[in-house]
Amino acid sequence: MDRPYVMGVDVGGTNTVFGVVDARGVILESGKIKTGSYETAEAYLAVLAPELNKLIERAGGKEKFNGIGIGAPNGNYYKGTIEDAPNMVWAKGKVIPFAKMISYATGIPVALTNDANAAAIGEMTYGIAKGMKDFIMITLGTGVGSGIVVNGQLVYGHDGFAGELGHVVVRKENGRLCGCGRRGCLEAYTSATGVARTAKEFVEQGKVKTLLTELVPDVEKITSKDVYDAAVKGDSVAIDIFKYTGRLLGEAFADFIAFSSPEAIVLFGGLARSGEFIMQPIKEAMTEYSLGIFKGKTKILLSELPESDAAVLGASALAWEIK
Amino acid sequence: MDRPYVMGVDVGGTNTVFGVVDARGVILESGKIKTGSYETAEAYLAVLAPELNKLIERAGGKEKFNGIGIGAPNGNYYKGTIEDAPNMVWAKGKVIPFAKMISYATGIPVALTNDANAAAIGEMTYGIAKGMKDFIMITLGTGVGSGIVVNGQLVYGHDGFAGELGHVVVRKENGRLCGCGRRGCLEAYTSATGVARTAKEFVEQGKVKTLLTELVPDVEKITSKDVYDAAVKGDSVAIDIFKYTGRLLGEAFADFIAFSSPEAIVLFGGLARSGEFIMQPIKEAMTEYSLGIFKGKTKILLSELPESDAAVLGASALAWEIK
Repeated sequence: MDRPYVMGVDVGGTNTVFGVVDARGVILESGKIKTGSYETAEAYLAVLAPELNKLIERAGGKEKFNGIGIGAPNGNYYKGTIEDAPNMVWAKGKVIPFAKMISYATGIPVALTNDANAAAIGEMTYGIAKGMKDFIMITLGTGVGSGIVVNGQLVYGHDGFAGELGHVVVRKENGRLCGCGRRGCLEAYTSATGVARTAKEFVEQGKVKTLLTELVPDVEKITSKDVYDAAVKGDSVAIDIFKYTGRLLGEAFADFIAFSSPEAIVLFGGLARSGEFIMQPIKEAMTEYSLGIFKGKTKILLSELPESDAAVLGASALAWEIK
Repeated sequence: MDRPYVMGVDVGGTNTVFGVVDARGVILESGKIKTGSYETAEAYLAVLAPELNKLIERAGGKEKFNGIGIGAPNGNYYKGTIEDAPNMVWAKGKVIPFAKMISYATGIPVALTNDANAAAIGEMTYGIAKGMKDFIMITLGTGVGSGIVVNGQLVYGHDGFAGELGHVVVRKENGRLCGCGRRGCLEAYTSATGVARTAKEFVEQGKVKTLLTELVPDVEKITSKDVYDAAVKGDSVAIDIFKYTGRLLGEAFADFIAFSSPEAIVLFGGLARSGEFIMQPIKEAMTEYSLGIFKGKTKILLSELPESDAAVLGASALAWEIK
């Protein structure tokens, strides 16, 4: 292969992780810097670019690279921009032409999209969705993200922002306030913070004794990890919290299936690793709420990419598509 | 052009309509037979095929045709089958290899999909969605159907049945029973029968005097057309019925936008012709419920294809895609 490598760059709210990846999905070299503390995109770039160029040199120079793929919050594929990403000082309320900036600094063509889309491309290229033409990636983390693949192509929509399934409204009446300012979004219930809110509600109702009050005396501090620990010990309240969360996901998935009838829904992130506590209610509700012709057809799969590498792999996969 | 014509066949619950169409979307010849009364698909075909062949001969023979496109309830694009279409005796509980049967009877290649998908391709080929790569077609009739176009291609999903947006669940709690057996589907509220049910509910609440009780003394018999007539005369209950229906559509559209971020949502069918009575609440609710980055971006358009021709045109458009 003329250009055997790609670079993947994952711009997260806290850290930026990057790595040199080969065609089999092996990360040959990697690095990391802090993302958030820079005042301007230029200041951030002044630290990031030398790090990227160092790895590029070590891999044999820019001629070895097919491209650089970037996953970033509010990343726009068509424009190569990061648009008003609220968690990063240098990108808040601004439109940053990030793809151009990185391309200029490295001499390598750049493709950019949001992090969940990058994850979907990663699964399709190196992961469990290899060979699938129709699937939906759902990332369950601090937020709930999604990347939708139809006919083997990522769905970007007319404006480059398609695939915001964390913000479909699953509770139309009296829904929880979401970080986006609206009410009842899937993310408000099924993100890590959503699960923590459910835990607080369930514990405060206090109908049943729960291990959670022993583990974390201050209800404000219960995390989804605590809920998992309590569930493993057989705590019925913790198990109910997962049931509640899983059923909401399953209901929402039934609607997603009515839209694009995917072969699989691939889950990624902390909550997805809660095993049958979450998987069983997801599957039950999905089957229960699916339209007859769709029942039992769509698989629920877990990403098999190692969590620490997935973001870099996903971003890097985008760079193979650069022609 | 070597093959200047296509044939469009629309298999409806009551009538089957068909026509010879040229590349500009002009219907040169057309015909019609009853769909429903035949016991077997073979008996139906024995009447339909000679009618099609008559038109084919008149147009200069099968060599003049690029293909035949068929829109049919529960039509599967990948398999060319009609699967368990409950409104047609000959297709109820059966899988009919309809594309093959028609191709065999006419000697012309056949493509088949469901009626709403055909409508979407019709709009993209001859109608208001010409040149659009991302849009959603919503047909508001006896049922609520949809055809979704992403990256210029129809979304068929992994099984050929994608795009059942009439069956996303818009009321998760205490939803109306839908014809599909589940509760709270969009179709149960925004189809013609859904609007009639809303009318019955609103009139029976009887808080305000309404023209509807004068126009149609038996509440069971109110149709969406009656509601329109009353709304035109300024009846506040009728106007509220449209507002209720439109807001439900707008809410649902906000979720569709979070999925595929289409350039436009194109409406077709009786209810869509109720003008501002329905359009204004749709637009208001859609904007209100849309995620910030999507607000004000997606157009709501009305199909401009004449209702009587749209089904044949839509089906015929599918036949241009046959290679």
